[in-house]
Amino acid sequence: MRALRLYGAHDVRIDEIPEPETRPGTVKVKVAWAGICGSDLHQYARPAFPADFVHPLFGEPGPFVLGHEFSGRVVDVAADVDGVPLGALVAVEPLIADGTCAACLRGDYHLCERFGFIGLMGGGGGMSEYVVVPAAKAHVLPAGVDAETGALVEPLSVAWHAVRRGGLGTGGTALVVGAGPIGLGLLLAAKARGAAFVAVSEMSAARKRLAAALGADLVLDPADDDVVARVRAAVPGGVDAGFEASGAGRAAVGALLGSVRKGGTAVTVAQGRTAEFDPNLLMLTEIGYTGSFAYNGPDFPAVLAALADGRLRTEGLVSDRLSLDEVREKGYEELLAHADGHVKILVGIDPGA
Amino acid sequence: MRALRLYGAHDVRIDEIPEPETRPGTVKVKVAWAGICGSDLHQYARPAFPADFVHPLFGEPGPFVLGHEFSGRVVDVAADVDGVPLGALVAVEPLIADGTCAACLRGDYHLCERFGFIGLMGGGGGMSEYVVVPAAKAHVLPAGVDAETGALVEPLSVAWHAVRRGGLGTGGTALVVGAGPIGLGLLLAAKARGAAFVAVSEMSAARKRLAAALGADLVLDPADDDVVARVRAAVPGGVDAGFEASGAGRAAVGALLGSVRKGGTAVTVAQGRTAEFDPNLLMLTEIGYTGSFAYNGPDFPAVLAALADGRLRTEGLVSDRLSLDEVREKGYEELLAHADGHVKILVGIDPGA
Repeated sequence: MRALRLYGAHDVRIDEIPEPETRPGTVKVKVAWAGICGSDLHQYARPAFPADFVHPLFGEPGPFVLGHEFSGRVVDVAADVDGVPLGALVAVEPLIADGTCAACLRGDYHLCERFGFIGLMGGGGGMSEYVVVPAAKAHVLPAGVDAETGALVEPLSVAWHAVRRGGLGTGGTALVVGAGPIGLGLLLAAKARGAAFVAVSEMSAARKRLAAALGADLVLDPADDDVVARVRAAVPGGVDAGFEASGAGRAAVGALLGSVRKGGTAVTVAQGRTAEFDPNLLMLTEIGYTGSFAYNGPDFPAVLAALADGRLRTEGLVSDRLSLDEVREKGYEELLAHADGHVKILVGIDPGA
Repeated sequence: MRALRLYGAHDVRIDEIPEPETRPGTVKVKVAWAGICGSDLHQYARPAFPADFVHPLFGEPGPFVLGHEFSGRVVDVAADVDGVPLGALVAVEPLIADGTCAACLRGDYHLCERFGFIGLMGGGGGMSEYVVVPAAKAHVLPAGVDAETGALVEPLSVAWHAVRRGGLGTGGTALVVGAGPIGLGLLLAAKARGAAFVAVSEMSAARKRLAAALGADLVLDPADDDVVARVRAAVPGGVDAGFEASGAGRAAVGALLGSVRKGGTAVTVAQGRTAEFDPNLLMLTEIGYTGSFAYNGPDFPAVLAALADGRLRTEGLVSDRLSLDEVREKGYEELLAHADGHVKILVGIDPGA
C-alpha cells in the first residue's frame, strides 16, 4: 500500500509498504480523510526523534507513517473484538498509553509516562491506505457525521479537552488567543458547551472573519486593540477562562492572564515560547494557570455527540483538500510558509471509503 | 488606649488613641496576642498606600494600627449579635469583603474586588489594646486552644487554604519550598489533612531542624541538594502538590514545577519575584499552577477543629515573644535584618486577657 513516511527534516517520501493485518484487539481501517496538524509541521521541520528511535509501546523502528488525525471505514475486525462493526465509519483516537502507570490508573491516560501517537512515532498513520488500530481507539461515527467531519474529531477533541480543563460550561465567558484550527475549535467547543460569551484575539484577516462567522461574540486584533481592556469592558472583572492557542509567548501570556477574572482559569494549549511571568499575579488573583494536552476518555465521545446533535458545526474549518501526492508541497511546506492563509488542510486518502 | 500605628517607611509610633466602641453587628475584643507577618514587614519597609489613603470598606484615614493576626477576649457584644458570647476567647479573621461583588456571591470573598484587612488598612488592629470587629469574623476558640495559639490561627488558615488549593488530602504527597512561618504551616496543614509524604526545601539550619521536628518526611537544602531529583527519587513521577513559600523567584519556581507530577498542582503562596517560565511545561504535563491568597469561609473553622483535636500541633512555631514597646526594634527591624533566625514572633498585648 502507499504510505507517506518521514525520513528526516523536510524529507517525506511516498513508499510502497506492506498492508498491516489485524492482531487481537484491533480493527483494520481503510483511511478516508487525514488532517495535517501543527505537530506534524514541528516534526516535519525538526524531527524530535533520532533515526534509530523505537517507541516502547510501538516497538518498531522508523521511518514512521505520518497522520494522526484521520477517519475511515472498518474493513476487518479481529475475532476477539466486540462493539466496532465491520463496515462502520470511525474516527481514530491516536493516543496510545500503557495502561499501567499511576496516571493511567487515575484515568489520565493522556498523561501516561509512556504515551505515544499513532501517526507520529509508530503504529502506522493516517497518511496511508490502511491502518490497524486498537478497537477501543476506533470511535464509530454517529448517523449524520460524515468521514470528512470524522477527520476533524481529533483536533476538536483537543479543543474540547482544553475547554473542560478551563472549567467552562453553560453561561461561561472566555477569551481565545489565536484562531488557527485549535483556536477555532476552542471557540466551537466553548459555544457547544454553552458558553455565553467568547472573545477571539487574532491577527490574520481571514481567520478573524472565520472566527466571527463561527460565532465569536467579539473579535479582537492585538495589533490594533488593547485586548485586556476590551475583554474587561465586555465582561467586567474578566472572563472565566482564557485559552492560549497562538504560541506567541510573552504578549499572549500577558493577554491571557490579564483577561481572566480572579479565581478563573488560564489554559495554554499551543506550544509557546518561554515568557517572563510574575507569580504574584497568581497569588493575588488565584487564577489557575494550566495546560491542556491532547484528550482522554470523555473527549472523543463528547465531540461525536455534539457533532451528531448539531451543537458543534464545523462549516468553514476545512480550507483545503489535497491528495497524498500533494501533501509535501501544498501541505507541509505551504503551511510552514503561509499558515495564516489556511485553516485545516485535509488529505483525501480514499474519500469514498 | 495604646496602639502601634504606621506613619511611613520604618516609622511606627505607639499612640494614645480613643478606645473603639461596638456598633451593630460587632464585638469588642481585648487583644491577648498579636503576631508579626511578612506582609507587615512589606508594609513597614515600603508602605503600599499613600498618606491620604482611605479604604472604601473601612472609610477612615491613616495612620493605621498594625496587626492582623490576633486573638483576644470578647469584652462587649452589640445588642443584635448572637453566637459570640461575652467573655469568649476568639481568633479574629481580619479579611473584610463587601459581600456584593461577583466573587463574594460565589463564596470567594477573599477574591472580593474591594477586600481589606483589619490591621493593615483600617478597622483598628491587633497591635492595640482593643479592637471592634464584625461578629462573623470573631471565631470562638474551642476548649483546649489557648490565646497564644489563637494568634496563630490566621497564618495557619493561610496555609490551610493553600493546601486546599493544592487539592492535597489523605495519602497525598507534597513539596514545600521555604520553611518560614507559612512554609511550616503548610507542612503542618498538609500533615493534618492526611498527607503521606511532605518534603521541605529550606536553607536556614534552624528552620531545617524545625521542619524535621514538625514532621517533614524529607528535608532538603537547595544549596546542597538537587531538590527535583531528590523529590522524584522519593516519590517516583513527582509529588501531587508543590507549594512555593520562599519568594525565591526562578530557582524556586523551577524546583516547584519540576517536582510536581503530571496532572498535579503547584501553588504559589509567597510574594515571589518575576521569573522566566516555559508554558510548554504546563501544556505537556497539565500541571495546574495557581496561587493561594489568604483564606475564605471554611478555613478558620477547619484550623480551629484541627487544633482542638490535635491534628494540628504548633510546638516550636513561636520563636519570640515581645511587648508592644519592643515591636519596632526586636520585631520589624530584626526580622528585616535576620528573618532566618526567627519563626513566628508574637506580641503580648495582654497575655492574660
